[in-house]
Amino acid sequence: MKVKLGIKNCLYPMPTTLVGALVKGKPNYLTIAHVGIMDLTSVSLGMNKGHYTNQGIKDHKTFSINLPSVKLVKETDYCGLNSGMTKDKADIFKTFYGALETAPMIEECAVNMECELIKTVDFPKHDIFVGRIAETYCDEAVLTDGNVDFDKVQPILFVMNDRSYWKIGEKIGKAWSIGKELTNKK
Amino acid sequence: MKVKLGIKNCLYPMPTTLVGALVKGKPNYLTIAHVGIMDLTSVSLGMNKGHYTNQGIKDHKTFSINLPSVKLVKETDYCGLNSGMTKDKADIFKTFYGALETAPMIEECAVNMECELIKTVDFPKHDIFVGRIAETYCDEAVLTDGNVDFDKVQPILFVMNDRSYWKIGEKIGKAWSIGKELTNKK
Repeated sequence: MKVKLGIKNCLYPMPTTLVGALVKGKPNYLTIAHVGIMDLTSVSLGMNKGHYTNQGIKDHKTFSINLPSVKLVKETDYCGLNSGMTKDKADIFKTFYGALETAPMIEECAVNMECELIKTVDFPKHDIFVGRIAETYCDEAVLTDGNVDFDKVQPILFVMNDRSYWKIGEKIGKAWSIGKELTNKK
Repeated sequence: MKVKLGIKNCLYPMPTTLVGALVKGKPNYLTIAHVGIMDLTSVSLGMNKGHYTNQGIKDHKTFSINLPSVKLVKETDYCGLNSGMTKDKADIFKTFYGALETAPMIEECAVNMECELIKTVDFPKHDIFVGRIAETYCDEAVLTDGNVDFDKVQPILFVMNDRSYWKIGEKIGKAWSIGKELTNKK
C-alpha cells in the first residue's frame, strides 16, 4: 500500500563528507552530505548560502572532499554543528595541501579529493558548487589490489529523514554482472 | 602514508536508483547511481548521453527516482546492463503513475519520487538532469513513526571503484547531536 509523503527527499543514504576550503587565509572544514556525482571526474556540493565556507570556495575556486571514517563520527558531526565563523575547526585535524595549493585536506581522512570549481549553479538558498577532481589522495592502508576498498575506508552514511549516521554493510554483488542471469532468461 | 591515485572519483557509496521515464510512449527504467542532492527538494542525475532514457526526460520534462531494495539487486543490475533501445524493461515491474502523469514509477520499489525537470546542465558526455520533487510515494511498511526507515527500505549502495553493490549497515548515531560532546569540551 503506497502512501503519499508530499515533497520529501528520500535520495539517501549519501556519503558524509568533510569539505575543506581556505577561508580568510585559514583551512576550514564543513560537514556536507548533500553531494552528487555529475560524471566520472566531476562532483557537486549542495551548500546552504549561510555557510561560512562558501566564500572561501568562491574566492579560491578550489575545495576538497574528505571522507571521514566511522571512527571520526563525533569530529564529523562537530564540524556540522559549529560554524567556522565562531570556531576554529582547523585545529581538530592535521591539514595537508596538494597541487592546487588552496584546497586544504585532512590527513586523518583515508580518502581526499582536491577539486577545481568549474561551475556554480544558483539555487534560492543554496550554492551548488561543481568541481572537477584534480587529484585524489588516499591512505595506502585502504587499498586492495590498487583500488580504494570501502570496507577498509568505513565511510559514514547520512540519512536526512531521521537525521542519522550509518555504517556501510556487506558487499552483495558485482555491478554489470549480477543481473546477467536475468538477461540470459529474457 | 598517502598515495596519489590521479583523478579518481571516490565519492561513494551512492544510492543505487532506478530512473523512470516515458520513452516513445512506454515506461522505461534505467539504473543510475551517479545522483546528487542540490537542496532539500531538488536532486540530480548524471546520465551519459548515450542512454535511451535521456530523450524521454527531455521530451516530457519529468522523471522518477525509485529506490530498489537489496531483494531486487538482480533486476536492478539487469536494468543497467540492458538498454531500452533493445529490451522492453517495462514488463519487469508493475508501473504506476502519480500527479505528473508522465513519470512512470515502480510499484515494487518501496520509495518513489516523481520529479519535474527544472534544469539540464550540459557536460561533455553527460546530461545532468536536475529535478524538483513533486511528490514522494512509499510503502506504508517502510515507515517508522511516519518517517522513511532505511533499515526497512534496505537500499542498494553502489561503489564504482570496484563496481560493487553493498547493503547499508547499522545506525551509529544522531546527526547534529553526537558531536555535541566535543563542542562542550572545546
